[in-house]
Amino acid sequence: MITIGIDLGGMSAKAACLAAGTLTEKARVVTSKEKTPEKTAKDLAALAREAAVRGGIAFDEIDAVGVGSPGVIDGGVVVQWSNFGWKDVKLAALLSEILKKPTFVLNDANAAALGEAKYGAGVKYDDCALVTIGTGVGSGIVLGGKLFTGYRGAGTELGHTVIRAGGLPCPCGRRGCFEQYASATALIRRTRERMEQDRASRLWELAKTTNDVDGTTAFRAASMGDAAARETLDGYLEDLAEGIADLVNLMRPQAVILGGGISAEGEALLDPLRKKVNEKLYIPAERVPFQIVAATLGNDAGIYGAAHYASECVK
Amino acid sequence: MITIGIDLGGMSAKAACLAAGTLTEKARVVTSKEKTPEKTAKDLAALAREAAVRGGIAFDEIDAVGVGSPGVIDGGVVVQWSNFGWKDVKLAALLSEILKKPTFVLNDANAAALGEAKYGAGVKYDDCALVTIGTGVGSGIVLGGKLFTGYRGAGTELGHTVIRAGGLPCPCGRRGCFEQYASATALIRRTRERMEQDRASRLWELAKTTNDVDGTTAFRAASMGDAAARETLDGYLEDLAEGIADLVNLMRPQAVILGGGISAEGEALLDPLRKKVNEKLYIPAERVPFQIVAATLGNDAGIYGAAHYASECVK
Repeated sequence: MITIGIDLGGMSAKAACLAAGTLTEKARVVTSKEKTPEKTAKDLAALAREAAVRGGIAFDEIDAVGVGSPGVIDGGVVVQWSNFGWKDVKLAALLSEILKKPTFVLNDANAAALGEAKYGAGVKYDDCALVTIGTGVGSGIVLGGKLFTGYRGAGTELGHTVIRAGGLPCPCGRRGCFEQYASATALIRRTRERMEQDRASRLWELAKTTNDVDGTTAFRAASMGDAAARETLDGYLEDLAEGIADLVNLMRPQAVILGGGISAEGEALLDPLRKKVNEKLYIPAERVPFQIVAATLGNDAGIYGAAHYASECVK
Repeated sequence: MITIGIDLGGMSAKAACLAAGTLTEKARVVTSKEKTPEKTAKDLAALAREAAVRGGIAFDEIDAVGVGSPGVIDGGVVVQWSNFGWKDVKLAALLSEILKKPTFVLNDANAAALGEAKYGAGVKYDDCALVTIGTGVGSGIVLGGKLFTGYRGAGTELGHTVIRAGGLPCPCGRRGCFEQYASATALIRRTRERMEQDRASRLWELAKTTNDVDGTTAFRAASMGDAAARETLDGYLEDLAEGIADLVNLMRPQAVILGGGISAEGEALLDPLRKKVNEKLYIPAERVPFQIVAATLGNDAGIYGAAHYASECVK
């Protein structure tokens, strides 16, 4: 079985062939919300063909194509992708008509979760969840080796479960969503707030102005022994642990895989996080094994997952 | 297929036969933590035999026995039942040795969920969750028609997901658990607190002292038009909606079934709750159908579910 995985994003789409568990060289195309869905489908079709060329694989040998797309996906249809203004775009049908190949679409966070579960940090686990810390908090869940999406793809929105009802407003309309406290955006906000309060903090050595703060600033200052940075991180990790513990108390996967730029912090992130999560588990890891690990596939997770999804769907 | 379902509780155990989708007359036995697990197993075996007699079914015709038990259950073993001080009790093995029948054990909240899903309010849905409002908040989840328990039975603890991190202390060790805000115990506490603040409330007509408050008091006073009761209920339902919306945003079942005494309040409960939950859904019910309904099997749900579980396990 040889499939093509496409990772569709707001700035670009990337694609590669998955053959014998290995990704071939990637191809890339620019995407834009100015393009119609039909034009985007044409671009993605050309991208898939280029991925086959780069992979040294005749397009005839491709069994199926998978696309990880932002938005709510239901049965090959992009029901809604707000950033691109897409509503009920029949992306699978558009692509398969051009490519004459079975084509399947899944949500991009789900694709990344499936990729990590099958080819990355989750290969040892039948049940695992990917929690991606970025601008928001994304999540995807694999149960019994299969992608779990909830009814008609409407589930796995961990970022939009509350940890502080009535708290910070979220664009989704709720107040107190996990995403508002645990995203990289939230860590940056918390770091900036702390800097404003503490002019003597070494955070100011790493960021000349609060605009220079990024998701690594607090980690770097904490490793220098800065108390303000340590407290900021501790508060952030406490909230990150709340949402992860909620996921685990409810769904109890064998492992949670942490993705996003923050996962590069390694044990400086994972070690305290494991302790905090375990304290919050109804049944701690000593009783029923549970792991927190860092994602290993980086930006390729979605391509792996989309290609794997196509192979599962077509077989 | 004819199976026996046993609902094991801290005060009593009840059992009945499930034949052609119908429960026969129930049998009952007193339970006590003073009895050893072996003695309890003997009592449950006698109870199963009595259930067959009451059902007019020869015990030889019974295909399997299912037990819904409190505590954490893993592979027929009661890993921990705190109230009874049970640890690693091989309940399925103890019972099957006496009865010479295949015997299966599942958690009691899961048994109730499976019962409602298969024979009660959830028969129309492949994916549904039972949320039981009582002393605590119990939950059980059925996905694709099968019981979902999380890895080694350690999941579906909705009551121990936080809605107010750092909030009210919970016996589980966390602060701010959903259970502390949405259980019947929490409604009673909230009603009492409001009474103390508002001596003119008609709540005082229904409860002479705060000790007389129960889970119905606020509903009854609200129906009389009492503003204090209405506000109390509104705050309670808001928090109940937070936890239910978290469950739905994460797992997106087709329906949530509300169980426990509170479900007898009918539309006075369900109508405002549906509105509040829908406002908090990442994908509202207008986009992807979602229902909140009242449980219909009452105290029999666990017997139905345990008997059904046995039939699923043995076939």
